[in-house]
Amino acid sequence: MSFSFGSNLRVTIFGQSHSEAIGAVIDGLPAGEKLDFGRIEAFMRRRAPGQSSVSTARKEPDKPRVLSGLVDGVTCGSPVCVIIENTDVRSADYEAMKRVPRPAHADFPAFVKYGGFNDVRGGGHFSARLTAPLCFAGAAALQLLEKRGVNVAARVKSVAGIEDCPIDFVNPDFAALKAAALSDIPVISEEKRQAIRAAISLAKQKGDSVGGVVECFAAGLPAGLGEPIFDGIENRLAAAVFGIPAVRGIEFGAGFAAAEMRGSEHNDAFYMGGPDARTVMTATNNHGGVLGGLTSGMPLVFRAAFKPTASIAQAQRSVDLISETDAELQIHGRHDPCVVPRAAPCVEAVTALVLLDFLLVGK
Amino acid sequence: MSFSFGSNLRVTIFGQSHSEAIGAVIDGLPAGEKLDFGRIEAFMRRRAPGQSSVSTARKEPDKPRVLSGLVDGVTCGSPVCVIIENTDVRSADYEAMKRVPRPAHADFPAFVKYGGFNDVRGGGHFSARLTAPLCFAGAAALQLLEKRGVNVAARVKSVAGIEDCPIDFVNPDFAALKAAALSDIPVISEEKRQAIRAAISLAKQKGDSVGGVVECFAAGLPAGLGEPIFDGIENRLAAAVFGIPAVRGIEFGAGFAAAEMRGSEHNDAFYMGGPDARTVMTATNNHGGVLGGLTSGMPLVFRAAFKPTASIAQAQRSVDLISETDAELQIHGRHDPCVVPRAAPCVEAVTALVLLDFLLVGK
Amino acid sequence: MSFSFGSNLRVTIFGQSHSEAIGAVIDGLPAGEKLDFGRIEAFMRRRAPGQSSVSTARKEPDKPRVLSGLVDGVTCGSPVCVIIENTDVRSADYEAMKRVPRPAHADFPAFVKYGGFNDVRGGGHFSARLTAPLCFAGAAALQLLEKRGVNVAARVKSVAGIEDCPIDFVNPDFAALKAAALSDIPVISEEKRQAIRAAISLAKQKGDSVGGVVECFAAGLPAGLGEPIFDGIENRLAAAVFGIPAVRGIEFGAGFAAAEMRGSEHNDAFYMGGPDARTVMTATNNHGGVLGGLTSGMPLVFRAAFKPTASIAQAQRSVDLISETDAELQIHGRHDPCVVPRAAPCVEAVTALVLLDFLLVGK
Amino acid sequence: MSFSFGSNLRVTIFGQSHSEAIGAVIDGLPAGEKLDFGRIEAFMRRRAPGQSSVSTARKEPDKPRVLSGLVDGVTCGSPVCVIIENTDVRSADYEAMKRVPRPAHADFPAFVKYGGFNDVRGGGHFSARLTAPLCFAGAAALQLLEKRGVNVAARVKSVAGIEDCPIDFVNPDFAALKAAALSDIPVISEEKRQAIRAAISLAKQKGDSVGGVVECFAAGLPAGLGEPIFDGIENRLAAAVFGIPAVRGIEFGAGFAAAEMRGSEHNDAFYMGGPDARTVMTATNNHGGVLGGLTSGMPLVFRAAFKPTASIAQAQRSVDLISETDAELQIHGRHDPCVVPRAAPCVEAVTALVLLDFLLVGK
Repeated sequence: MSFSFGSNLRVTIFGQSHSEAIGAVIDGLPAGEKLDFGRIEAFMRRRAPGQSSVSTARKEPDKPRVLSGLVDGVTCGSPVCVIIENTDVRSADYEAMKRVPRPAHADFPAFVKYGGFNDVRGGGHFSARLTAPLCFAGAAALQLLEKRGVNVAARVKSVAGIEDCPIDFVNPDFAALKAAALSDIPVISEEKRQAIRAAISLAKQKGDSVGGVVECFAAGLPAGLGEPIFDGIENRLAAAVFGIPAVRGIEFGAGFAAAEMRGSEHNDAFYMGGPDARTVMTATNNHGGVLGGLTSGMPLVFRAAFKPTASIAQAQRSVDLISETDAELQIHGRHDPCVVPRAAPCVEAVTALVLLDFLLVGK
Repeated sequence: MSFSFGSNLRVTIFGQSHSEAIGAVIDGLPAGEKLDFGRIEAFMRRRAPGQSSVSTARKEPDKPRVLSGLVDGVTCGSPVCVIIENTDVRSADYEAMKRVPRPAHADFPAFVKYGGFNDVRGGGHFSARLTAPLCFAGAAALQLLEKRGVNVAARVKSVAGIEDCPIDFVNPDFAALKAAALSDIPVISEEKRQAIRAAISLAKQKGDSVGGVVECFAAGLPAGLGEPIFDGIENRLAAAVFGIPAVRGIEFGAGFAAAEMRGSEHNDAFYMGGPDARTVMTATNNHGGVLGGLTSGMPLVFRAAFKPTASIAQAQRSVDLISETDAELQIHGRHDPCVVPRAAPCVEAVTALVLLDFLLVGK
Repeated sequence: MSFSFGSNLRVTIFGQSHSEAIGAVIDGLPAGEKLDFGRIEAFMRRRAPGQSSVSTARKEPDKPRVLSGLVDGVTCGSPVCVIIENTDVRSADYEAMKRVPRPAHADFPAFVKYGGFNDVRGGGHFSARLTAPLCFAGAAALQLLEKRGVNVAARVKSVAGIEDCPIDFVNPDFAALKAAALSDIPVISEEKRQAIRAAISLAKQKGDSVGGVVECFAAGLPAGLGEPIFDGIENRLAAAVFGIPAVRGIEFGAGFAAAEMRGSEHNDAFYMGGPDARTVMTATNNHGGVLGGLTSGMPLVFRAAFKPTASIAQAQRSVDLISETDAELQIHGRHDPCVVPRAAPCVEAVTALVLLDFLLVGK
Repeated sequence: MSFSFGSNLRVTIFGQSHSEAIGAVIDGLPAGEKLDFGRIEAFMRRRAPGQSSVSTARKEPDKPRVLSGLVDGVTCGSPVCVIIENTDVRSADYEAMKRVPRPAHADFPAFVKYGGFNDVRGGGHFSARLTAPLCFAGAAALQLLEKRGVNVAARVKSVAGIEDCPIDFVNPDFAALKAAALSDIPVISEEKRQAIRAAISLAKQKGDSVGGVVECFAAGLPAGLGEPIFDGIENRLAAAVFGIPAVRGIEFGAGFAAAEMRGSEHNDAFYMGGPDARTVMTATNNHGGVLGGLTSGMPLVFRAAFKPTASIAQAQRSVDLISETDAELQIHGRHDPCVVPRAAPCVEAVTALVLLDFLLVGK
């Protein structure tokens, strides 16, 4: 079903932007795991709107309430259901959308698929608001990974073409990544952060929006994790990452740049390294830590491209689905001129969930 | 399971490069569909090796034998099992791989995952040879799609940085794509074909390899097909396409370039078009025919990046997994200096299978 | 995952007997279906405890709260999440169970599986209380089936060996079944109801319990629904029905009695019947409406056996899992001396969900 | 998909009674397992027809040919595909079935489901012949279970109402069960074997058939294996066992008889037993080794009811699906008057596959 992903650890999200509540059911967490709610809520705040000048003005307390699956804060083997009440709702903003679909949104195909019965308020179940419970689930998964020696961190690699500094694929600087995550625009370079902030503000002024790229790293994974062919690390990560709204592409390691490299240049040579010189390592990491669906033991590296926010303040050409005529659309309401900073924790969340799913089975 | 994909139409592939046979089980084809075997075999020849100066010298008749699922060439509702005997096998070429993993191959993580019991001959079950039965399945799916008014075609977009001519995303020229498919390097521009052929030959001379990008189009899909969030067109296509060996990235519509566009530039305006001016269409197609997991009715467009062939003739640094020491690797045997031309029909095949899977359910 | 079932219509239940709330996520309901909440709640009351002298004294308002998936009471294509708050909780009753497992309960294997971290209060996630949200889901499915011409009804066939009157498998009397469903013990014969009530009361007096059999009927299904071999009507119904606590067996049509019949006696002869004499029918219905995984168009008939309630007031021999010694167990608290009357709507609910799942795909 | 079952160990069967070949793909066997083919073929002979006076005269060498997944007889982590060529085929026997469905067979609903395109020769994909590759897979699973200390054995419990001697559920006599498996009618009592053989012969003489019950045991399973609610031992075994043709019911432990017992009688008391008096055991085994979806560590016990063979030599009433009129059916060809003896290894096979699937994940 399309609101769920995962195999041994399975997350189902539910809710619409303006339903009574949104939430998630997380099935498959091992029993006996203590969850740190302070850290979960801190993680969720990285995704939450209304925290800076560059994101939407909609403010939501987004306080998660756990209904099941825990006894005294410890997992009990039963699915964890978490809900977040929807409080700050202004349905009137969205009336026009019933007839006039927003360009680059799912409004039109959803109208066809659901025969006009889908919830159009705030984008309904296509709303990025559903990433809030996803981040709860991801934050829990991050804690379990950490206990198992796995580190996951994502940063904004670029916004509007402005690139953050490069990161070493062989030894990603997790301290720098985790420091970046605390800022409103999770890049490492302060200079680039200011440039990006300016670009976003400029887009906002013009009633426009900008996109960007998120880059994600995971270290501490054992070699040999994953499955071949159709259900490997790449397959499952790709499928899950495309579940985050606005993603248009994903690439691992050298990614699309690999297509322009020669084999002698792209192949990562193996050598015996590590503390006891008995760990198989690679000198470079163009393969991004994954070969044929399986982890190599080197850091996992991938990037996801996010399109510019579809909802912009400028007038746009659209159609009226009822009268079947051309129409002009003027979107009101509150919209991020750039979703990329808030998308970074979402990428981290789904990555943590996918990796933990693999780890819970063993190799 | 990792050798299968699909939901209502499910394909399972089996076999290793040097097992007795390889094959596929295709479950979910509707009963009553007549298959044209001449066309299936013609499609499979596009993927087959040994057809030109730019591909491996290994020649395989690759004659598919259908064991089940058909009565007088018509599907009967039971799974179609097809096998291809492995005949042209030279196991001796691969002895060294038992100890010394090839860089950029799955050899090393597979050694860890399978405890050294995996079939190393010819790459075992990681071999691109398993795309032969996948192409059988895809060729059958293409016929069913065609009857339902859906056209799918893939071309080589670039090799080694040499780009074929651009294609209009709004009205892709399927005649040109299908003509290109008949040549050894499926690009539209003859001039670019020669340049690419020269680049591949040069790489081969140097004992090296090159990568490239495949671009795939599908037209005739109804609007509203797919599912939201985790099981949409993008999710399933991405998961399936990463099942083709050597894929390192996938992007839809404008893809990674969208990350550098402004919303006002990227958003595709709707208008009422088509023969009766009552079909919702978009003037541009940056969204590549898919919005939020659902088809828009515009042509589906995506690209997959292929890394340069990992097996190169040049000596490479590796390790000996038994003695746990560094080692030099010299790969002998027959290898494509560039897999991208043969990858195009593979991309077409998995695309056809994923789309038919969605279509068989309805919207 | 084990808290979910269904393929195109998928239900996930969550919660423990004494967690903050229990609930269900129902994914796959078609958009545009108006749900009648009065009827849903009426259905849920058939399962609810505390309604008669023969069931547990625990009273729960069991008021369902829908968080998502509906707009003005109409399905919108997004999963319906329903929750029921747990209010009438007396945890102290269950302290002893942490160490001393109840015979015929999952306490002991759950202790092993979850390393002692499972929620033991009230049976945790093994509690029959989780059938409350299941009944919500089933009640919704029953409404959708009714609109599609399908009738489902279950009755208590026997309790403690006391058998209700037989029902014609060829023309089950749905009016009688639906009338029976309104009483505290859903049997057709008033005489048998009194006898059963007496048997249950007697068991209760003695601190003992009794079991029984539920029989379920569905009419109006088209012929040819289902799938062969491993995913047919029988496979899926059996898997789902064993999800109801206390089920020990399931049989279709003549069931175990068929094992003692001759083929000439068991085979149901076909004839052309129906209003226009062009409908294929059978004169008898030993096959219970299903042949080889597929519906025949005749009424579906199956029975499920329920064991006597495991929690009895009599002292029982058990063990202390911590001290690893034998122990005596005295169960306090509130328990049904017979779950069978309340199990009938649960069987109806899962049957409705399984059948609707098949119907939503078509044949 | 309906030709597959299993989660971590997944078996897909393919083929029709008269297709070129039938076979199975077994995905998920751990790498490094040596298979004993002599024992696999011996197991398959228990299911093979033509071995005694009481089964069909059709003789098939049923020689399995493994196409993939093994290197020198050892699993390599890639799916094992096994095929069995169909050689002894007499299609002419089955012409009439195209129009006139056999009572108690899937012919009629299959005609509707597949629009008349299903393979009617020999029952097509509904044929019990597909249990041959299933038995190959089961025989392999039995070997892996044996190495892990798990014993599985099934016997015929009754045919035509003639009951074999009872077996102790607490300590099933596996030696007696395995000895019984070597005879043409796998019962323990020689006296009952003769009575059953006589009953089958009598049915055959009269052009009739008889049914029976198979009882299956598994010992050596750890406690705590399985999952709660919808995906436990009972759910998965039931779903898989209904995949064997002619099964009409399944019951665990005391089964339907439990419905007539009192709790004080049915509840199995725990005690500390085993060699060191530190193993939790039960004095009786009415629960059949499974509580709430999870194993208790006591022997697993269940029974499956098989209807009498549908194909009988006596003339039967049916219909002509083309002319839509009543018709008489006279079945020619070769049919078992009783499938129960050959069904016992099939039950053992699916049980082994389901249990190994659970064991491969751990608890």
